[in-house]
Amino acid sequence: MGKIDIQQLKDVANHLRIDSIKMTCAAKSGHPTSSCSAAEIIATLFFNEMKFDKTFPKNPSSDRFVLSKGHACPVLYAAWHQAGHISTADMMNIRKITCDLEGHPTPRLDFIDVATGSLGQGLSCAAGMAYAGKYIDEASYRVYCLLGDGECAEGSVWEATAFASYYKLDNLVAIVDMNRLGQTQQTMLGHDADTLAKRFESFGCHTVIVDGSNVVELLNAYNIARQTKGRPTAIVAKTLKGKGIIGIEDEDNWHGKAVPENTIEAIEQLLMNKVDITGTLEINLPINDAPNIQLPIGHIKMAPPEYTIGDKVATRQAYGVALAKLGDACPRIIGLDGDTKNSTFSENLLKKHPKQFVECFIAEQNLVGVAVGLQCRDRAIPFASTFAAFFTRAADQLRMAAVSFANIKCAGSHVGVSIGEDGPSQMGLEDIALFRTIPGSIVFYPTDAVAAERATELAANTRGIAFIRTGRPACPVIYSNDEKFEIGKGKIVHNSSKPKVLIIGAGVTLYEAKKAADKLQSENVEVIVMDPFTIKPLDKDLIVKSARRAENRIITVEDHYQAGGIGEAVCQAVSDQKNIHVRSLFVLDVPHSGPPDVLLEKYGISARCIIDAVQQFIHLPN
Amino acid sequence: MGKIDIQQLKDVANHLRIDSIKMTCAAKSGHPTSSCSAAEIIATLFFNEMKFDKTFPKNPSSDRFVLSKGHACPVLYAAWHQAGHISTADMMNIRKITCDLEGHPTPRLDFIDVATGSLGQGLSCAAGMAYAGKYIDEASYRVYCLLGDGECAEGSVWEATAFASYYKLDNLVAIVDMNRLGQTQQTMLGHDADTLAKRFESFGCHTVIVDGSNVVELLNAYNIARQTKGRPTAIVAKTLKGKGIIGIEDEDNWHGKAVPENTIEAIEQLLMNKVDITGTLEINLPINDAPNIQLPIGHIKMAPPEYTIGDKVATRQAYGVALAKLGDACPRIIGLDGDTKNSTFSENLLKKHPKQFVECFIAEQNLVGVAVGLQCRDRAIPFASTFAAFFTRAADQLRMAAVSFANIKCAGSHVGVSIGEDGPSQMGLEDIALFRTIPGSIVFYPTDAVAAERATELAANTRGIAFIRTGRPACPVIYSNDEKFEIGKGKIVHNSSKPKVLIIGAGVTLYEAKKAADKLQSENVEVIVMDPFTIKPLDKDLIVKSARRAENRIITVEDHYQAGGIGEAVCQAVSDQKNIHVRSLFVLDVPHSGPPDVLLEKYGISARCIIDAVQQFIHLPN
Repeated sequence: MGKIDIQQLKDVANHLRIDSIKMTCAAKSGHPTSSCSAAEIIATLFFNEMKFDKTFPKNPSSDRFVLSKGHACPVLYAAWHQAGHISTADMMNIRKITCDLEGHPTPRLDFIDVATGSLGQGLSCAAGMAYAGKYIDEASYRVYCLLGDGECAEGSVWEATAFASYYKLDNLVAIVDMNRLGQTQQTMLGHDADTLAKRFESFGCHTVIVDGSNVVELLNAYNIARQTKGRPTAIVAKTLKGKGIIGIEDEDNWHGKAVPENTIEAIEQLLMNKVDITGTLEINLPINDAPNIQLPIGHIKMAPPEYTIGDKVATRQAYGVALAKLGDACPRIIGLDGDTKNSTFSENLLKKHPKQFVECFIAEQNLVGVAVGLQCRDRAIPFASTFAAFFTRAADQLRMAAVSFANIKCAGSHVGVSIGEDGPSQMGLEDIALFRTIPGSIVFYPTDAVAAERATELAANTRGIAFIRTGRPACPVIYSNDEKFEIGKGKIVHNSSKPKVLIIGAGVTLYEAKKAADKLQSENVEVIVMDPFTIKPLDKDLIVKSARRAENRIITVEDHYQAGGIGEAVCQAVSDQKNIHVRSLFVLDVPHSGPPDVLLEKYGISARCIIDAVQQFIHLPN
Repeated sequence: MGKIDIQQLKDVANHLRIDSIKMTCAAKSGHPTSSCSAAEIIATLFFNEMKFDKTFPKNPSSDRFVLSKGHACPVLYAAWHQAGHISTADMMNIRKITCDLEGHPTPRLDFIDVATGSLGQGLSCAAGMAYAGKYIDEASYRVYCLLGDGECAEGSVWEATAFASYYKLDNLVAIVDMNRLGQTQQTMLGHDADTLAKRFESFGCHTVIVDGSNVVELLNAYNIARQTKGRPTAIVAKTLKGKGIIGIEDEDNWHGKAVPENTIEAIEQLLMNKVDITGTLEINLPINDAPNIQLPIGHIKMAPPEYTIGDKVATRQAYGVALAKLGDACPRIIGLDGDTKNSTFSENLLKKHPKQFVECFIAEQNLVGVAVGLQCRDRAIPFASTFAAFFTRAADQLRMAAVSFANIKCAGSHVGVSIGEDGPSQMGLEDIALFRTIPGSIVFYPTDAVAAERATELAANTRGIAFIRTGRPACPVIYSNDEKFEIGKGKIVHNSSKPKVLIIGAGVTLYEAKKAADKLQSENVEVIVMDPFTIKPLDKDLIVKSARRAENRIITVEDHYQAGGIGEAVCQAVSDQKNIHVRSLFVLDVPHSGPPDVLLEKYGISARCIIDAVQQFIHLPN
């Protein structure tokens, strides 16, 4: 690397600074100081180190870049501007409704793989990409992730680092822009680069400390990273927040603020004084060794279910069977689990197709983050499994997965009080609410094994975020193997000619509802029982039609808390209908440990409770 | 320490093993192997190291013990049995509905401070307790936290460790029971104690590696910990899962399983062969130097709000004002923040009462965990603040806080699309759903500054988990300073004599609703506008009464996604009412960056959208 090139990289860095300052000034908001500290890091990465196709940013063979410190996106936008991919006019429209250069990066832009802006999440996604590169694509592309020092306080960073070293992801480079200052004060470590480096070292990285504003040191560090085998590299880059902005550099109280407009000219002049050379830097083209694949979404055919009606099978078990069969059908179906694979039955896939399974250990944030990383550029269809309750650990990652428009599937087992003796910490009682909040999500709640297998198949064949809620107890198969299931289509599982109430249940509560229906029938009270199959979307037509037949009465019953659950979803669905009344049974309080049957009774969702609710409902004065 | 005492501790450990095995065998489920690995750790802690009052486990001066690896509770129950606090009969009723010795520990038991069972959370709570001991109580009690090695994969463990070292919590000891085996396979580190110790060392702990089945080494390590000043100690204790259970010790596939009943006798005999001495070990009494305080919950009087109607004040700002005033009134009001204190305005408390504020940096899981720890034994009333969106990062900690029956207050700012240009990653759009799922929670959604101050005061004065949803934009004060607010009581902010629709909004959408109402009035369409103040509990009476007056029509409008939000809560509230129709406006999709006003319009919750909805609603054929 000659002197000229070094000077050109320095010049690019200062151009990135100027553009970052100008665009945020135009927007009157944004993060110029967090951008300026990273200018040399970005300049060296984009215009020397990385191999990528600037005309087709989603090229599967290109090196990946993840901006975990998403608020520094101005410097990233500036780099793509320098690369010629973004016009000056567009760049100056940052943060406007008409421009996809948003306040934090989202994949509305073709050069963004994952949305960032909730700190500490990028490295998990990057690790997922690196895992895909090394073990699934078996290609040479590398993954670079830029983190802030403040966000290294997030535990998810360390989950990702431990994962990356366990899987020897030597194609992954984490670079920390250690600019010392957080939003409101100095970070925990300030400029103590040694301690931060020791942390990455102890978590299994090769580590290098550099002056992050020195392009030669940076290039050298990337070179070391490329030569490091068997483990990821972490580069701790000491920088100054607001570097190059006179009066603002390394000063407090400049986080997330545009510089005053009347100072721009002087700032630009000072930066331009350092720029020596005009000229263009070539970007290194990728080595095209990643397979060009087209995921067969919509056409993944699973061998059909093979059950006998009446046999007792837990839906979590059927999920495992289906997952393994999907693995047969499509080598890009990848299972992930958080050390619960013998409980969620995702181990079925591991046993049959070991290369299609990633054990993520007890780190659910990273589990979801890695899944999001795996699905980038359609490298895989990830199925992440753990107890439903523990997906709450990754609620923020799931929220961000929606902003990433990710295609991931989550299967949560051990839902509700029906898990029994293990007690409330292990019971998924808010998982329906969590997954229903995600824009565009599908929430499957299969009741029996046949439905669970079909839910898994449908999830694989539908883009977006899907959740499959599975149960612990073995319950009878109620559907025949050739039963057809559709997203948003429920089923009547107990019918009658003169029903007085429509009962909606799912999973264990559907069995309770059926028991209640049989008992009521023997007492000459007729009801309809409906299995919604998907809680989102909900089969409103069938609900309304059935409620109309059933004297406009609905009872919902669910092994879940009230808020955001089946009852509220049904209330909402019929809220524009005249005169339909809904009563809801749900888990009212923090449950206790105990036998499942006893808990169903104690928390008001047993067959007996349903019968009582029906009797009260139909005897209400009209 | 004499030979006799050493042997007695060994004997106690084996008794703990036997009891752990027997009680889980009686329950036919549970975690004997995870208990047996920790037997010497627990024996030495409880019967030599710790100072506590076994007759009054909540004694504020006692050393604290947190079982982060909650599934190993049999060994903890066995210890309290050995101490004489639990009868044999009770112990053998573990996991039954009639017995509070649950499958994972909860504070239904007097000797449990925080519920555990979702792994990786205990150390944050323990750090909160240690912080309270060192800086709030200024007392000598120490805090011991037992972790599993598997759970050290959870990032929250490292958030807690970083926090503990930053605050020099030398009264905190983390002990890792490194038994090598997770639920489904060997952990990431197996028995590599050196690496685990290096991780704790790099995160600022003094570290000691011991043979965890050697009582002398353990006692020595506790002694070192007690002499270590200025930083916490981490003891990495190498152990064997199922230690002492013949055929099961150190074997795979024995996680969470009772041993076969017919093997019990032989196992007990082998363990009893090692027991030499019968006799009782004294438990060290605490030094009574923690203040006996009675939190004035229900009687904390805040100086009244001082605003002028029409002045523009953001509710987040009013929250900060109120928090500082509450700090004046009660020295045990403690603010916590995740490096957003100048955005949430919690910095007001820091500025006025620096000793009543804990900066938790960008680590929201630990932020909530520390808050839970601080409130144990009524040491404090913690108010944790960050962006509402980032509370999703701590969803699992909040779920567990409910199982802990904790008294914590959360204030989430920057809600909804009305934050504008920063984009979707920063927008709280599922926070109402999240906090509504928590059993017994209160969800405040104050619209103006007066309401925000009163919400903060009411939160302080009501036990349990409360959420205060605050907004970014400055909006006009609409209530007078002497307006009375109550939990579960809404207010009519725009009334009329012949209304056609009831509109329910909160925060920015209440202003939009008021604008819409004024506009509609000028077109001779009368409506009522209601401010619910609390979304949970919801003022059902006022809603129903107002809807009846308004031709049975309700429109809800919220800066939040649909699921679990205001609209669904209202639908649920009126679901047992005849003939009330609800239409809901909410944020339908992942929002884009842009100016707040433009986003309110684009995502369908502006005054104009409300007017359209009203017009459509009232012109529907009846």
